[in-house]
Amino acid sequence: MARKTVVIVGAGFGGLAAAKALKGADVDVILIDRTNHHLFQPLLYQVATAALSPADIATATRTLLRRQPNATTLMGEVTGVDAEAKTVSLADGTTIAWDWLILATGAAYSFFGHPEWAEDAQVLKSMEDALDIRRRLLGAFERAELAGDDPDEVRRLTTFVVVGAGPTGVETAGTIAEMSRQTLRRDFRRIDPTKARVILFEAGPRVLTAFTEPLSAYAERALEELGVEVRTDTMVEAISDGVVRANGEDIEAGVVLWSAGVAARPAAQWLGAAAARNGAVVVRPDCSVDGFEGVFAIGDVASYAMDGKPLPGLAPVAKQQGMWLGKLIRARLEGRPEPAPFRYRDWGTMAVIGRSRAVAMLGGLRMTGLLAWLAWSMVHLMLLIDFRSRLTVYVNWTWAWFTQGRGARLLARLP
Amino acid sequence: MARKTVVIVGAGFGGLAAAKALKGADVDVILIDRTNHHLFQPLLYQVATAALSPADIATATRTLLRRQPNATTLMGEVTGVDAEAKTVSLADGTTIAWDWLILATGAAYSFFGHPEWAEDAQVLKSMEDALDIRRRLLGAFERAELAGDDPDEVRRLTTFVVVGAGPTGVETAGTIAEMSRQTLRRDFRRIDPTKARVILFEAGPRVLTAFTEPLSAYAERALEELGVEVRTDTMVEAISDGVVRANGEDIEAGVVLWSAGVAARPAAQWLGAAAARNGAVVVRPDCSVDGFEGVFAIGDVASYAMDGKPLPGLAPVAKQQGMWLGKLIRARLEGRPEPAPFRYRDWGTMAVIGRSRAVAMLGGLRMTGLLAWLAWSMVHLMLLIDFRSRLTVYVNWTWAWFTQGRGARLLARLP
Repeated sequence: MARKTVVIVGAGFGGLAAAKALKGADVDVILIDRTNHHLFQPLLYQVATAALSPADIATATRTLLRRQPNATTLMGEVTGVDAEAKTVSLADGTTIAWDWLILATGAAYSFFGHPEWAEDAQVLKSMEDALDIRRRLLGAFERAELAGDDPDEVRRLTTFVVVGAGPTGVETAGTIAEMSRQTLRRDFRRIDPTKARVILFEAGPRVLTAFTEPLSAYAERALEELGVEVRTDTMVEAISDGVVRANGEDIEAGVVLWSAGVAARPAAQWLGAAAARNGAVVVRPDCSVDGFEGVFAIGDVASYAMDGKPLPGLAPVAKQQGMWLGKLIRARLEGRPEPAPFRYRDWGTMAVIGRSRAVAMLGGLRMTGLLAWLAWSMVHLMLLIDFRSRLTVYVNWTWAWFTQGRGARLLARLP
Repeated sequence: MARKTVVIVGAGFGGLAAAKALKGADVDVILIDRTNHHLFQPLLYQVATAALSPADIATATRTLLRRQPNATTLMGEVTGVDAEAKTVSLADGTTIAWDWLILATGAAYSFFGHPEWAEDAQVLKSMEDALDIRRRLLGAFERAELAGDDPDEVRRLTTFVVVGAGPTGVETAGTIAEMSRQTLRRDFRRIDPTKARVILFEAGPRVLTAFTEPLSAYAERALEELGVEVRTDTMVEAISDGVVRANGEDIEAGVVLWSAGVAARPAAQWLGAAAARNGAVVVRPDCSVDGFEGVFAIGDVASYAMDGKPLPGLAPVAKQQGMWLGKLIRARLEGRPEPAPFRYRDWGTMAVIGRSRAVAMLGGLRMTGLLAWLAWSMVHLMLLIDFRSRLTVYVNWTWAWFTQGRGARLLARLP
């Protein structure tokens, strides 16, 4: 019997975990991703705000699988799946055959039916997004210094709007405020960067709705202390030509960041499979897709119900599903008993607000302030994928903490 | 009397040194650069070959001048000089008035009268160039892995041509060979990266002509041991459609790097001043430009004769001229005696070939091998501009040295 092939689409937390769980198994693993790297997405906002360099939070996927001879890494854009012929096709025309297919393509941002807002509002999903946001943020201050004698233009350029107060929105808004109030404080001669406005819009009644109310309240206070204007219960009505309309008020902004709606990537359409409201592929308890033999979906692109509720779109969900699915396929290959049914184990949630404040829910524990921030730092350092990243991130963090500096502030040209 | 203004164009080694030398002087200093950062160019090839991250060798210029209240940093593209009106104009239409003007815009590569070669051949001058080369090098291996079953295509993609065997060409060729033979060795499944060809063309009779003959011979041997095919006495005749013609032979290449001819940037044209053959502004012993009152040129954009010979286009020349000129202007401002006439002090020259080999001429001393490499590392670490860079570069180097890894191997998409 010929050796079988598992094709995994997407080298995020889920796809990589599945590939690794198949190490040493009697099967060929082909991991395909649009980029050549695995990204530690929880720290992407630090690249966007120039605190970390790309290489601090990303590693070439093929390097991560170097010691796994049964795994081949391909850099390519999957454009479709033929579930009958059991192949995936790539943008360059190549087709690749599979016996099992694991879809782990993740999610993108959605603009609530206003795709045209994407022209003005930047999202933060990929490394390219982060570098683009960094260019715009730094470029806004550079342009403001050039326009130093035109106060209206300076005000417009240094007004930053963040839409959506989930962890990414809160972390980004807090960091931009901190950057303008501390890091850049003494770097300009014609403008005062500490006068920059950071406005955080949230449609719901409080920031960080996934956390308890006292933690939300703490986070809101902490944001305001950093200089962020928090506007909850506020729906953004329009974004165009750099102007954000909310509650009937028009705000001219230098940079608009979007961290509100989330939609799964189009894997369900590739298959013609049942999709949840956010576009995610509906999967069964073993992550398989009903009606498509050998096809699985995990992570943000999958809609997985546990105890009657869909699992949240979090890195640990994807990672645990990937590990479990790797074990399942391995057991089937080797004719061994299958693993116990998948259950997501929630170890806790954290969000950070600036240099030394955070909120954390770990099991029954609720933490705020420096203690939560220390817990957050430890957890994130430990989760970072290889030692080298950990070491340089640690150096960069420690240095930034003491100096309030941001090392990665490079611009090749004004955006 | 109104306070006077010194405008410095270019934040390289020369421009930055001049600005710093004016710290505390009773004069306004305006430093203008196209980018927002000062670049440690001698290590740029390490960014191009994915060993270092941009932030390791570049720092925001305004951060470097943070503690110098009389210095304003502007990010802008100078497009012309009006020597009558004493202004410079920027691409966005702004004009800036000066009492003294220091031109420190450096040099670019020239293609010996074949500007069309620039379409196929990449140069390494700016951070953008380095990131572009990195993308092409990594992309060539990624594409080769996708094309794994087509040996001709794999061979084409993994043939790297470097034109010009000065320090940059030698360092780059050696590092690419090392990367393919060591770093990437175990990362691919369908191709063997150690089979990649690296061909170094040099029109002259030996590599590193600025060094003594025994050192050149050592460097050539070291390159060949790393797997570089060194072809001296070979003039490149044509570069088009990815094919390099030299000595009548056509070589299909995945990436072509150009490090041969150098030409000054167009400052002489801005002024209508006398230019040397490479386009550099001819300057007098005090770096001033004859016929243009208050205008100076330093570094690679200046043609400075010392003891009847033009000074070479090296970072230390620019730096020493910048420091000296700052002192001169200061002395004139304060009515103090002028400094002793400028003399370039040559501390030595070094070039590195791979992980533990280098050649160095320091005063009367000639060094090769590990000793020269250690000297090179120490000097470059010390020269790196701020402590933070030094520390992370040190961490990255040490880590890369022990693991033969390259941390900064990130590609957002195939180039």
